[in-house]
Amino acid sequence: MQTTGLSLILRVKIQSNAGFSQVATAIGEAGGDIIAVDVIHVTKDHVIRDITVNVHNEDHREHVVESLRQRTGIEVINVSDRTFLVHLGGKIEMQSKIPVKNRDDLSRVYTPGVARVCTAIQEDPSKAYQLTIKRNTVAVVTDGTAVLGLGDIGPDAALPVMEGKAMLFKQFANVDAFPICLNTKDPDEIVNIVKSISSSFGGINLEDISSPRCFEIENRLRQEMEVPVFHDDQHGTAVVLLAGLINACKITEKKMKDLRVVVVGIGAAGVACTKMIQAAGVQNVIGVDREGIIVPGRSYDNPMWQWYAENTNPEARKGDLNTAIEGADVFIGVSGPGVLTVDHLKKMAKDPIVFAMANPTPEIAPEEAEPYVRIMATGRSDYPNQINNVLCFPGIFRGALDARASDINEEMKLAAANAIADSVGENQLNEQYIVPSVFNKDVVKAVSQAVTEAAYRSGVARRQANV
Amino acid sequence: MQTTGLSLILRVKIQSNAGFSQVATAIGEAGGDIIAVDVIHVTKDHVIRDITVNVHNEDHREHVVESLRQRTGIEVINVSDRTFLVHLGGKIEMQSKIPVKNRDDLSRVYTPGVARVCTAIQEDPSKAYQLTIKRNTVAVVTDGTAVLGLGDIGPDAALPVMEGKAMLFKQFANVDAFPICLNTKDPDEIVNIVKSISSSFGGINLEDISSPRCFEIENRLRQEMEVPVFHDDQHGTAVVLLAGLINACKITEKKMKDLRVVVVGIGAAGVACTKMIQAAGVQNVIGVDREGIIVPGRSYDNPMWQWYAENTNPEARKGDLNTAIEGADVFIGVSGPGVLTVDHLKKMAKDPIVFAMANPTPEIAPEEAEPYVRIMATGRSDYPNQINNVLCFPGIFRGALDARASDINEEMKLAAANAIADSVGENQLNEQYIVPSVFNKDVVKAVSQAVTEAAYRSGVARRQANV
Repeated sequence: MQTTGLSLILRVKIQSNAGFSQVATAIGEAGGDIIAVDVIHVTKDHVIRDITVNVHNEDHREHVVESLRQRTGIEVINVSDRTFLVHLGGKIEMQSKIPVKNRDDLSRVYTPGVARVCTAIQEDPSKAYQLTIKRNTVAVVTDGTAVLGLGDIGPDAALPVMEGKAMLFKQFANVDAFPICLNTKDPDEIVNIVKSISSSFGGINLEDISSPRCFEIENRLRQEMEVPVFHDDQHGTAVVLLAGLINACKITEKKMKDLRVVVVGIGAAGVACTKMIQAAGVQNVIGVDREGIIVPGRSYDNPMWQWYAENTNPEARKGDLNTAIEGADVFIGVSGPGVLTVDHLKKMAKDPIVFAMANPTPEIAPEEAEPYVRIMATGRSDYPNQINNVLCFPGIFRGALDARASDINEEMKLAAANAIADSVGENQLNEQYIVPSVFNKDVVKAVSQAVTEAAYRSGVARRQANV
Repeated sequence: MQTTGLSLILRVKIQSNAGFSQVATAIGEAGGDIIAVDVIHVTKDHVIRDITVNVHNEDHREHVVESLRQRTGIEVINVSDRTFLVHLGGKIEMQSKIPVKNRDDLSRVYTPGVARVCTAIQEDPSKAYQLTIKRNTVAVVTDGTAVLGLGDIGPDAALPVMEGKAMLFKQFANVDAFPICLNTKDPDEIVNIVKSISSSFGGINLEDISSPRCFEIENRLRQEMEVPVFHDDQHGTAVVLLAGLINACKITEKKMKDLRVVVVGIGAAGVACTKMIQAAGVQNVIGVDREGIIVPGRSYDNPMWQWYAENTNPEARKGDLNTAIEGADVFIGVSGPGVLTVDHLKKMAKDPIVFAMANPTPEIAPEEAEPYVRIMATGRSDYPNQINNVLCFPGIFRGALDARASDINEEMKLAAANAIADSVGENQLNEQYIVPSVFNKDVVKAVSQAVTEAAYRSGVARRQANV
């Protein structure tokens, strides 16, 4: 299994008597892959070049640089990393929609003209949606406690992820998003802060908040705020998983209501995925976590396990994954590497469907699983069928903002999942292609339209047709 | 004294037998001023035109529209207001600095590449200044309690002002600013919230927060945060006032240390102006508020008046403005209309300097004061010598961010005031031109450089030359 590589830019001073072939040989022998060469500066004695090189990982990077340093007549002036270069100074910026060139402009966008706009909103608060950024702006809120696979790295270190999210919001759905990284882990404080800063925002995207706090925070904000609140790690994953499952059922000709599903990893994402597939008609789900199958009637300290005990496992199976997987149609993993084995796969029903979504290393390596499964999906971009939130959150917020929705409810999420599933045409659909590419521009359009319609249908839309 | 006019766009359907001259006559007779005419749609029977018209105020607007409606063959379809039109959907937007076009871009700005950037910041938090938006981003924070002259209109209605401020930050100084309108008036909560959301921000611009809460909030944030905090209503005004006073002294050949200054309106701005001119060398200041001169030795409930009693009025004058103004060189008004009379002016020293900054109506009308003063400045854009914060805040934050300053201190504010004053060349300087135009682009450059230098000189700069 490959890890994702790095792109370096090596600035190298090459003495005239050394020549570029020396450089190419040194990099090549060390296993580096030259992508581009730019000349920066030339004198009689030497030439300075920027050489873009792909390497496997950080160790390999050192190896390539060391290989160059050992050659005479070659000096490595600087090593930049393309990922770090694109982050310099941050990845997003604020922009005025109209220039302020003269006194006339100034008096319209600022004092004294703006006073009449303020007064109009004071008299009719709903006008904030017409006359301010609220209409199109979402807060990307985190406390930095569950960032990517890195865990609790704090709000400062979480900011690059939230900036990246804001870029994707803009690029894919023309939603203006701004990162709010909170220097507190207290759910009460988080709820109060988000409510207090809500004037600028028409929606709240919660991100990378650890469980079980994420449930309380999301539930309270949904109840207490008049704009939609959506914890992407839970519901984004769940929506895209359901889209994949819908298409997997088409291929295998299985029916939602007949599926036996095993979920391993009963945390925030596991519960959200379960609720989503239940809303879509799945009736038989069994959950497995560290202590084995979660059994109805038992009582659990962990509130997510307790919910599971009350809402799943209709046959009241007991035991571990070995028991749970017996005759299962679908495996959904949001746990960790090595959880699923070939032996497990062999016990599944005909045409096994596996979503091994642990990041960065799936519950079972796709190569290993391949001979025993019909459909295999992961969270990774270097295998087919990537279950990627980017397919969901831009379109779902675009649709919610367009409808001026007060909530993102079950009906809207189901609509989003169906729209994502339908973006894979019947003639394209196959075992290797159950969800569309994240760069398929039709997905956002389809999702946002479906979500807007679902918002009107379910009574949470507040935008009138002519406003 | 003129109030600022409105620009309307009238969409008018004109029957062919009526003709445009009818429209022009109707508007002209009502006193409207036609600025532009655009054809929108033409048929055999009628033509639809957009007519841009300047009017004096909202009553006049109704008069002009009514005048048109009374003509036969003319139908007013819609009346838009150019100020409202520029506010539709808000005035600012988020933008990505780099596009995300393919998988390679995505893996660099978002997962998995971004994880290495997060880890780098986690290991060395100062790297947030290199690798995130913090380096160039300022929060424009308000609680909506003292917005323009409108008072406590709340956070939603304050948002258009904060958006306007963000536009000016970007336009004048390339600072990325984002509006944070707080739905609480409690100073403790405001301090906690601003501290909690500070990861994204390299500076905090407090705006339109009523006194005396603004003092406590600013003081605590300055002490407790490691980024600069600046209440623009206090210090922006004070810096530009001092710039004007420096140049007024050049014209009148008066010296700061010899000036007798009367300040009327001992609120947040009054105290900030006083501290600023004292820092510049003024020794003799007398404050006047509703109960008359503020006298040393007396004790006052109002903390600003108490500060005044302890730091001004070295001659311990008692009485009202009539006594205070006797022999004064400078009047500084941050109070209300009609406070200053011609009789007061007659009692001032030779070459009176008057800053009548009450908004929108100054303490004395410039026309009335003119025969009795040497130099007259107001807060208004329709008279010479406008004391406008826009001359200060973009450059002062640009300079503070460039130095990665931990504070905006007295030395930096003095440097800003001097840079603004020096932006008026010796050959330009005269009684009608003591401060530069807000559209003079050299001002921001001069202010930011001076502020950066002052930050290094005073030991609050944290940016190393090569970082």
